[in-house]
Amino acid sequence: MMGGDRGLQVTATGVVIALKRHPDLHCVLVGDEKRILAALDPSVDSDRIEIVHTSESVDMHESPASALRFKKDSSMRVALNLLGSGEVDACVSAGNTGALVATARFVLKTLSNIDRPAIISTLPRTRGHLHMLDLGANIDSPAEILMQFALMGESMVRTIEGIERPSVGLLNVGSEEIKGSEVVKSANELLKSSSLNYVGYVEGDDIFNGTVQLIVTDGFAGNVALKTSEGLAQMLTQVIREEFGRNLLTRLSALIAAPVLKAFKNRFDHRTYNGAVLLGLNGTVVKSHGNVDGVAFSHAIDTARLAAKKDLVGHIRHDLEVSLAAMTQAEVS
Amino acid sequence: MMGGDRGLQVTATGVVIALKRHPDLHCVLVGDEKRILAALDPSVDSDRIEIVHTSESVDMHESPASALRFKKDSSMRVALNLLGSGEVDACVSAGNTGALVATARFVLKTLSNIDRPAIISTLPRTRGHLHMLDLGANIDSPAEILMQFALMGESMVRTIEGIERPSVGLLNVGSEEIKGSEVVKSANELLKSSSLNYVGYVEGDDIFNGTVQLIVTDGFAGNVALKTSEGLAQMLTQVIREEFGRNLLTRLSALIAAPVLKAFKNRFDHRTYNGAVLLGLNGTVVKSHGNVDGVAFSHAIDTARLAAKKDLVGHIRHDLEVSLAAMTQAEVS
Repeated sequence: MMGGDRGLQVTATGVVIALKRHPDLHCVLVGDEKRILAALDPSVDSDRIEIVHTSESVDMHESPASALRFKKDSSMRVALNLLGSGEVDACVSAGNTGALVATARFVLKTLSNIDRPAIISTLPRTRGHLHMLDLGANIDSPAEILMQFALMGESMVRTIEGIERPSVGLLNVGSEEIKGSEVVKSANELLKSSSLNYVGYVEGDDIFNGTVQLIVTDGFAGNVALKTSEGLAQMLTQVIREEFGRNLLTRLSALIAAPVLKAFKNRFDHRTYNGAVLLGLNGTVVKSHGNVDGVAFSHAIDTARLAAKKDLVGHIRHDLEVSLAAMTQAEVS
Repeated sequence: MMGGDRGLQVTATGVVIALKRHPDLHCVLVGDEKRILAALDPSVDSDRIEIVHTSESVDMHESPASALRFKKDSSMRVALNLLGSGEVDACVSAGNTGALVATARFVLKTLSNIDRPAIISTLPRTRGHLHMLDLGANIDSPAEILMQFALMGESMVRTIEGIERPSVGLLNVGSEEIKGSEVVKSANELLKSSSLNYVGYVEGDDIFNGTVQLIVTDGFAGNVALKTSEGLAQMLTQVIREEFGRNLLTRLSALIAAPVLKAFKNRFDHRTYNGAVLLGLNGTVVKSHGNVDGVAFSHAIDTARLAAKKDLVGHIRHDLEVSLAAMTQAEVS
């Protein structure tokens, strides 16, 4: 069920947490057997764990092409092979994103009518959350590809959240029709003529402050938005720490404010948002953030388990066929 | 010195604050004379204020083309005309960004060797701040234009901050050479072969957590990064308020933590970062955020005053000539 090349202690801890949380969960751990056994909590229920030994791993800075070509016995590749052959129901990796996208695409192939996979994740709001894609699987995405992202994303929000017609927004730099690149304008037209519950353009501040349930953008802008948010959140956390740690008095007020600060932290615990789904493949692949702890990794496993249980891939496949039939029908009539 | 179409009270308050702060400042207020007089603090030093009456204003949702064509007596257009004719040294506007960029470009023209103006602003870091452009004046920017942005931005950081060779980064979705769009890759090559202190690719999290002093990107990604940050900051502020306001006990802890929260707020007072410069024109044009208070607007005036005092436009013009001569020299030899 997983290929994680770095921070084996993190993935091993995450697996143990997830196994405790879900009695129906079985985990196949792919990697160096000795090191996995050394990292695993010995009290783990061994009946629900299987280890598949691999001799290689994909380096975090390895190029996707190199990983594909030279790392045929890497934990990442072997885990994806297990998913491709149906021996596991989903695959979770904290490894190199580019290599994961390229290898998953090679091993699993994209769904029919989907040209490229996209990375989708949930992001927090004051109340609830939203889904956003593409967060960086692709760079340049023409309008037709953005339309595919919207269709897949909409199907995912419906399947996972049970929202029949999730609202869809297209990320732009202004809400007026005149703004935006040619690609964004063309995608806007495609989305308007689709059967989706498309509300139109949204801007960067609508990610965290808006109401639309799914935001579609290309992988460049999506990744910039995601990483910028991560950076800002980190900076603010650090400054809050600095200010509360300044002297005895501020440290005292930190103690008194601790319950509030903890409540605040819990509401935005980035670990619960860990686990982005690689959408558009014949199989459920979940990407965990590389630089997280076991709790965060367990949430990536949760995401994979939920997607597999709800047959996310089957639903997307079905929804795409329905959309395509509707579009063909519209063209014929 | 200013054209502000909305929130006249805000601009009037901002002017009064800025006049008090800088004894050398004179303000020409362009707009509806009666309304300006009604909004102005009567105790303002009338010797340092002049009002130029205009009958029209550009609507916040008006298209740039419409503003250019039909609003020849708008406060925005008249203020820019005053700058173009040298009657004022800088122009500050809180109006419609698209219309401001188009009108400023039409009235002032771009500097030689500059094809398009770009919006540059400072953004906060734990210690100090950075400069970033383009924040939304352009949509698609080819590599040559990104190179122009880098040259102008570098010249501005040197002129305003007194940093001889500011470090320059190019926004991308990964630090490895293999990532990024074709445009970003080409711009990377241009920057590498330039005389700039170019450090290479940076990612979204480097905006707030990195060390590079100038970040260059296209207006789409730049605007997405800026607005996403604004949205996240707003959301976090709201949630902090909610959590501290939950009950008597949390409200009490808010009182006790008030000095720390205030110190935190002061360190990241977005108002001090108000005032983005429209770079690349024959004149200093500063754009104030539309939805701010008088204090924030006064900071936009500060930015304009400083740019004019330091002869920002003259320095950019000079630096561009030097860079161009160096490049021509390199090609010849």
